[in-house]
Amino acid sequence: MAELVTFGETMLRLSPPAGQRIETEGGFDAQIGGAESNVAVAAAGLGVASTWLSKLPANPLGRRVVRVLRGHGVDPVVAWDDSETARLGTYYLERGADPRGTDVVYDRAGSSITTVATDELDRSVLDGADVFHTTGITPALSEAAAETTADLLSAAGEAGATRSFDLNYRSKLWSTAEARSQYESLFEAVDLLFAPLRDARSVLGYEGDAESIAYRLADDYDLETVVVTRGEAGSLAYTDGELYEQGIVDGETVDAIGTGDAFVGGVLAELLAGSDIDTALSYGAAAASLKRTLEGDVLVTSRGELEAVLDASTGGISR
Amino acid sequence: MAELVTFGETMLRLSPPAGQRIETEGGFDAQIGGAESNVAVAAAGLGVASTWLSKLPANPLGRRVVRVLRGHGVDPVVAWDDSETARLGTYYLERGADPRGTDVVYDRAGSSITTVATDELDRSVLDGADVFHTTGITPALSEAAAETTADLLSAAGEAGATRSFDLNYRSKLWSTAEARSQYESLFEAVDLLFAPLRDARSVLGYEGDAESIAYRLADDYDLETVVVTRGEAGSLAYTDGELYEQGIVDGETVDAIGTGDAFVGGVLAELLAGSDIDTALSYGAAAASLKRTLEGDVLVTSRGELEAVLDASTGGISR
Amino acid sequence: MAELVTFGETMLRLSPPAGQRIETEGGFDAQIGGAESNVAVAAAGLGVASTWLSKLPANPLGRRVVRVLRGHGVDPVVAWDDSETARLGTYYLERGADPRGTDVVYDRAGSSITTVATDELDRSVLDGADVFHTTGITPALSEAAAETTADLLSAAGEAGATRSFDLNYRSKLWSTAEARSQYESLFEAVDLLFAPLRDARSVLGYEGDAESIAYRLADDYDLETVVVTRGEAGSLAYTDGELYEQGIVDGETVDAIGTGDAFVGGVLAELLAGSDIDTALSYGAAAASLKRTLEGDVLVTSRGELEAVLDASTGGISR
Amino acid sequence: MAELVTFGETMLRLSPPAGQRIETEGGFDAQIGGAESNVAVAAAGLGVASTWLSKLPANPLGRRVVRVLRGHGVDPVVAWDDSETARLGTYYLERGADPRGTDVVYDRAGSSITTVATDELDRSVLDGADVFHTTGITPALSEAAAETTADLLSAAGEAGATRSFDLNYRSKLWSTAEARSQYESLFEAVDLLFAPLRDARSVLGYEGDAESIAYRLADDYDLETVVVTRGEAGSLAYTDGELYEQGIVDGETVDAIGTGDAFVGGVLAELLAGSDIDTALSYGAAAASLKRTLEGDVLVTSRGELEAVLDASTGGISR
Amino acid sequence: MAELVTFGETMLRLSPPAGQRIETEGGFDAQIGGAESNVAVAAAGLGVASTWLSKLPANPLGRRVVRVLRGHGVDPVVAWDDSETARLGTYYLERGADPRGTDVVYDRAGSSITTVATDELDRSVLDGADVFHTTGITPALSEAAAETTADLLSAAGEAGATRSFDLNYRSKLWSTAEARSQYESLFEAVDLLFAPLRDARSVLGYEGDAESIAYRLADDYDLETVVVTRGEAGSLAYTDGELYEQGIVDGETVDAIGTGDAFVGGVLAELLAGSDIDTALSYGAAAASLKRTLEGDVLVTSRGELEAVLDASTGGISR
Amino acid sequence: MAELVTFGETMLRLSPPAGQRIETEGGFDAQIGGAESNVAVAAAGLGVASTWLSKLPANPLGRRVVRVLRGHGVDPVVAWDDSETARLGTYYLERGADPRGTDVVYDRAGSSITTVATDELDRSVLDGADVFHTTGITPALSEAAAETTADLLSAAGEAGATRSFDLNYRSKLWSTAEARSQYESLFEAVDLLFAPLRDARSVLGYEGDAESIAYRLADDYDLETVVVTRGEAGSLAYTDGELYEQGIVDGETVDAIGTGDAFVGGVLAELLAGSDIDTALSYGAAAASLKRTLEGDVLVTSRGELEAVLDASTGGISR
Repeated sequence: MAELVTFGETMLRLSPPAGQRIETEGGFDAQIGGAESNVAVAAAGLGVASTWLSKLPANPLGRRVVRVLRGHGVDPVVAWDDSETARLGTYYLERGADPRGTDVVYDRAGSSITTVATDELDRSVLDGADVFHTTGITPALSEAAAETTADLLSAAGEAGATRSFDLNYRSKLWSTAEARSQYESLFEAVDLLFAPLRDARSVLGYEGDAESIAYRLADDYDLETVVVTRGEAGSLAYTDGELYEQGIVDGETVDAIGTGDAFVGGVLAELLAGSDIDTALSYGAAAASLKRTLEGDVLVTSRGELEAVLDASTGGISR
Repeated sequence: MAELVTFGETMLRLSPPAGQRIETEGGFDAQIGGAESNVAVAAAGLGVASTWLSKLPANPLGRRVVRVLRGHGVDPVVAWDDSETARLGTYYLERGADPRGTDVVYDRAGSSITTVATDELDRSVLDGADVFHTTGITPALSEAAAETTADLLSAAGEAGATRSFDLNYRSKLWSTAEARSQYESLFEAVDLLFAPLRDARSVLGYEGDAESIAYRLADDYDLETVVVTRGEAGSLAYTDGELYEQGIVDGETVDAIGTGDAFVGGVLAELLAGSDIDTALSYGAAAASLKRTLEGDVLVTSRGELEAVLDASTGGISR
Repeated sequence: MAELVTFGETMLRLSPPAGQRIETEGGFDAQIGGAESNVAVAAAGLGVASTWLSKLPANPLGRRVVRVLRGHGVDPVVAWDDSETARLGTYYLERGADPRGTDVVYDRAGSSITTVATDELDRSVLDGADVFHTTGITPALSEAAAETTADLLSAAGEAGATRSFDLNYRSKLWSTAEARSQYESLFEAVDLLFAPLRDARSVLGYEGDAESIAYRLADDYDLETVVVTRGEAGSLAYTDGELYEQGIVDGETVDAIGTGDAFVGGVLAELLAGSDIDTALSYGAAAASLKRTLEGDVLVTSRGELEAVLDASTGGISR
Repeated sequence: MAELVTFGETMLRLSPPAGQRIETEGGFDAQIGGAESNVAVAAAGLGVASTWLSKLPANPLGRRVVRVLRGHGVDPVVAWDDSETARLGTYYLERGADPRGTDVVYDRAGSSITTVATDELDRSVLDGADVFHTTGITPALSEAAAETTADLLSAAGEAGATRSFDLNYRSKLWSTAEARSQYESLFEAVDLLFAPLRDARSVLGYEGDAESIAYRLADDYDLETVVVTRGEAGSLAYTDGELYEQGIVDGETVDAIGTGDAFVGGVLAELLAGSDIDTALSYGAAAASLKRTLEGDVLVTSRGELEAVLDASTGGISR
Repeated sequence: MAELVTFGETMLRLSPPAGQRIETEGGFDAQIGGAESNVAVAAAGLGVASTWLSKLPANPLGRRVVRVLRGHGVDPVVAWDDSETARLGTYYLERGADPRGTDVVYDRAGSSITTVATDELDRSVLDGADVFHTTGITPALSEAAAETTADLLSAAGEAGATRSFDLNYRSKLWSTAEARSQYESLFEAVDLLFAPLRDARSVLGYEGDAESIAYRLADDYDLETVVVTRGEAGSLAYTDGELYEQGIVDGETVDAIGTGDAFVGGVLAELLAGSDIDTALSYGAAAASLKRTLEGDVLVTSRGELEAVLDASTGGISR
Repeated sequence: MAELVTFGETMLRLSPPAGQRIETEGGFDAQIGGAESNVAVAAAGLGVASTWLSKLPANPLGRRVVRVLRGHGVDPVVAWDDSETARLGTYYLERGADPRGTDVVYDRAGSSITTVATDELDRSVLDGADVFHTTGITPALSEAAAETTADLLSAAGEAGATRSFDLNYRSKLWSTAEARSQYESLFEAVDLLFAPLRDARSVLGYEGDAESIAYRLADDYDLETVVVTRGEAGSLAYTDGELYEQGIVDGETVDAIGTGDAFVGGVLAELLAGSDIDTALSYGAAAASLKRTLEGDVLVTSRGELEAVLDASTGGISR
């Protein structure tokens, strides 16, 4: 029985070697990535029984997603799309180096999940789940995906799960106005909100500092807990009338993609382990920092490694 | 000024290493491929001034296609698609080993060329062209692509170019009935037809041997020249009331994809060089055989190398 | 609930590129392999709920085995060895080319499974299992492994599972005398025996043709079913007083390692699907042939692909 | 018709992976590089119709240079050397890491371009060209190359093109005395001089600060424009009695080779676009900075990307 | 005739690419490494006739060690282990990135050298040797290895060689108490001691600053020379009643493994060249810094390169 | 003290992956190769103390040759060329696939060995040597190399060594007339001649069958032993009035380069081991066959492996 169920799209991620461009000749490293499965992988590494719910093309690329997630210890529960238009969303990642920015080329339009219908999915995975998590990317994919997102949040509530939502605004998918409208319609079915400060401002229109935004978000939308993330400035949480704040864990960046998802995975895993939000934020910070040291979208770690980072007991060579 | 103009879709081709599967982890070798650009590349290697006409997404993947074709000596004349839905068609190639067949997974639906309109294309490239070539894949892509195919065949005729067409039936793109109907509507604007024997039978419904099919195709559709290809059994051509026949050039197969296109490229290059159809078929056979020894969709060769194959003067180590 | 439970050692497999030697510089491709997990992977690909029971070092190499097997759809149920001497068995594979033979360098002595004890293992996985499978490699590893093998065969019998055993004699692990003695002590708890003809002769001392050996093995050791494999000559089975015979499926060999395990996986999967032994042998033959086309110890396939091979409907390029 | 014509040698560049040495075993990454073709590539990426004039061996290595340059959008106009001594200049690049310096091992003696004669080259490419560019490397290669350099500068002047010259002193090719003498004989046919401050001092013997050197160079040799580059300290230009100064664009260094050529390409491209020298220097600075983020000798970029760097609007992940 | 003889274990070193984990799929880069052969390689590069004495399995992996060391200019004198339990020690290296530490997974238990006996080794290599060097790793491997270490130190003394010893404490091999006891029994046969400050404190129990520890070590154990290394703080030596101190050579770190061995190799090579300890420490510092710029355990360099670093004359691109 | 001394050029060998062309983008595998060092490597693997004498550039590429040969167990005795024109000969190898031939592009003109002088070489290595071997490639390189070849053959004779010579005609280096004249002037200092049948015919002008050519060669030039190689037809030797004949050992071909050198190495090693010419030819045949299964110019093997091939005891998987 899953402790954590996430729902969303997972894409094939193709990237040329560092220092090379997408447009010049040469092969691509191939991984998979998607905000919600990234969260499930991070949580699974930390000991959480994690299930990922989605729709995939019934072809080798879809099977590849299932294989990789299983390898990471996540249980994929999938509606298989064997229609003629079935396809796996894809993105091309070209890692930047200052002043050349990292470039993401999406090739995800019309992917199988854009045709998802609630009754295709095995909602029984929600039975007994402690947390259901999805992000603002999913409803941006299609009307069908937005409806299914709403349905699942609703079903998760009925099943007694905490409903977690990460704004995760993507400007390449929709406008801020579209996003805001959709977010607001979903918030009533959300208990725990992860809000990047930038999204809270540019999409939801909040002004002021992170603390006040956290408070107002909780108040405006009747949310149990609001976690605001501020990049280098760390995170803070508002819950039960209290504010909790955590810095980041410093480190090197090998690959920044998926850092936010690792943070959410760390926070959820520690909440599921029974810790308070303050401790959970610190686990999120360590998870985010560890993710940045690894190639790929996902954090491959263990509770022991993460706690060693928090104990500041690492850094040398262990031999 | 181009001697040969081809029109069609070029895709990104992603393939795992030999002996590996698409669905298991690991990177992809990345090349490009498309029947019509494959023909242009083969012909360019043999000294033909070759232009490829198409529509591409205005992103790094589209630019990659242009880069690679230029490297192969082809002049790409491209309508750039900067719409939100712009995408490059993609295919995944898993090379088989008997009894495991080679598997092609298409991810080409909705690619930029499916929205092509005749007036987006710089038809001035047809001015002075000797041959215009396209294949049955292009009209299968979308109604728009089919209309543009018809328009270009018509324009090529007006420009005085020989119009060449390869049936190239793809069962993953349309039914035999749809293909037949489309083919028949295009044939009146075709001068030189390349017909794989299998397609002539299964799509156009011909029965009997290759010789009689060649004759009847020419007769039924008033075609100047019909080249029928028969795989291992070689090719034959019917023109001006005469039949010409050529065998294949034996050899090893490193990668069979693009063999038929190399054949067409060889035939067209030699016709453009002023040879008769009989000689041209032999150049096609050598081109096809050389292609099979190379990884990728395209034949990289030179006139000297090809003629050395025909002279049977190769095979050892030259040092 | 597992349909198939296998028990045995899985090793890290390190191999230089084809045409290179272990002793010259350069990196190693890294996979995993083990007769019993190879069987579980092949069966899982064919739709069988497969569990693999073993003991692994509690380190990244042990976790790697679990990750890879999960990716292949197998459920690993593992006793973790966190002792100081914990280690993963390893083997180096140098692929040959005639007349240079394929070379396997074992570095497996003292691996964690050699210290396995029956009560470390979660035997509840046997509850409801239809088939329990292990091979002659496992009891060759250590006395502890031999005892646990006997215990598990016994427990499987009590749980009502069919007990399957593949002789799989390894001359680098023990003498034929040691092997024979051990085999004979285990046979009374075996229902279904896979016996390579070579092993039946050199280890068990049988003479005569495969047919008579199959009959005598069944008779001498009171085995329900005996499958004798004869390399290029195919396989035959003796059961219920009847002999069934199947040829091999011809094909190319990319990597021969694991062919026998794929055969066993195919046979067991089809028996579990309710087919008779004759049909099961043909599935085994197709599985073996498909395995030979893939790099690595394991067969990655699906029921659809395997059945297409049996239908002889493959071989070309599907596009 | 070319806007920019460059003339010089392009070599094969072979480099072991970062952290490896030329002298230890392992393969080489293979690219091409040459100061003048590097400039042409950078300019082509920024929209300039660029032609590169040279002599190459009539073998696969020579054809490789043509292929790669065409891929980068440059039009190579080549005298093919089919003599017995034809060879492509080669250099081996071992990237350093402080305190180990980057090492360049030249193997370029006797390359085909050292036998170049003016009348082998298709000088008609100069007709209508706006800028002709070469560097101090070319006359250092051989007497023949020096004579041809002088001839082409003269012909370019007659054709009405601006003649651009980059000192580019290479101590491995000639002494400072030889270089100075050659430079001075060429300066009368130069309009626009790029002078690294170090070369102006060590080769031409100037003292004082960059500003005064720029002024004196222009004055001493009657040059229209002198651009002095000062590494980290940025560049300055003296023209029409005015001094213009620009800093560098900060960033990371993946591969420093070709930075100066990218700078020149950026300056020339922007001058060709009609901007003043001040703006052109800033484009050069951005081009140089972008180049440092890419593996290889050449800058692969677009006008849009470069201008985004200048707008300081990049740096994050665009998705 | 060897100037330097070292004795110890050399292992196969397997490492995933940077940013990847041992436990996730993918191949391993394969090198060799061992403290004593690392010292021999560094010294050989600096012109010392270096011999490495050890025991290796008589299989391709053992032969690989010999091949690689010979390539590095070291003369391996090896007792070949053709027993059934022969194996090469192995270690897996996962390079870290802050805050994820570098992880070393040893798989070295029971390697061939653990069964080494003094009379298996060709001690004649000590005849005429100037320096014999080993480290605290070797006696930690097994009782047999400890006895042989003592025997060889004794034999080296009889042969008139300076006996050099590096504490090199490895917590994964033994306790500090075991190490201390062993060290103390060996010290009477040591002339030159390399003592990492951390080991001097945690294992030998010294307190106070490095200077006083160097003095007391020399005094307590009657050592001719004691070199204390202090990481970033550089090294110091106590000999003949004098203290000498050297800083480090700043630089980048590509791979930190083997840095200490390169330092020892640099010091020994320069002492063998007749320099005083002060100069020798500076060569050690440069060697250590150069090592950090290279992948792998060993320093590949030359006297010229190292002296250029000391002359601070490097850092740019030499071309 | 060397048993075998060989003299000749060793080049860097650069090759694209199989199925790729030299002229298309991508990296090169880098190995070394040269007829005489290939012979030395094969012989060293079979237990012969082998020295290779040559001249190399004093740069990382020259050092690379020394490193690799040492790794293969050969002792390189080298005159280092630190002149400005020092360079390592290079060749590019593009492996063919029928009907595309394997292509070798030489870039070896003016390599350091072309300036070799006899007194630069340490001829003391000939003292006590049993066999001195060189080939017809060396005198083709330059007059200086031809003179040194003659000098060394003469010195080897004085030192009492058997002088072995392989015709090894290379049409890319000289004409048949030049070669014949040079060969004939050297033959008086040759004891053992290896003559490919093709070269004996096309260069030396012999007609008739191999047997009579062997006899006449021995007779015409007063040679002790003549070995004629006939490709697929095997080899034969004439010595002391007797003819000996051996077939080839069948097998697969991974890389044919160096096959003839492995043959010579096998023959010489077995003659040095005291066998008669008949047995030596069989060792040559096995060595040639093993070489064909390995990538690269050189045979990496052992006496045990080679004898197993002769015993026909290999072919399966040993585990």
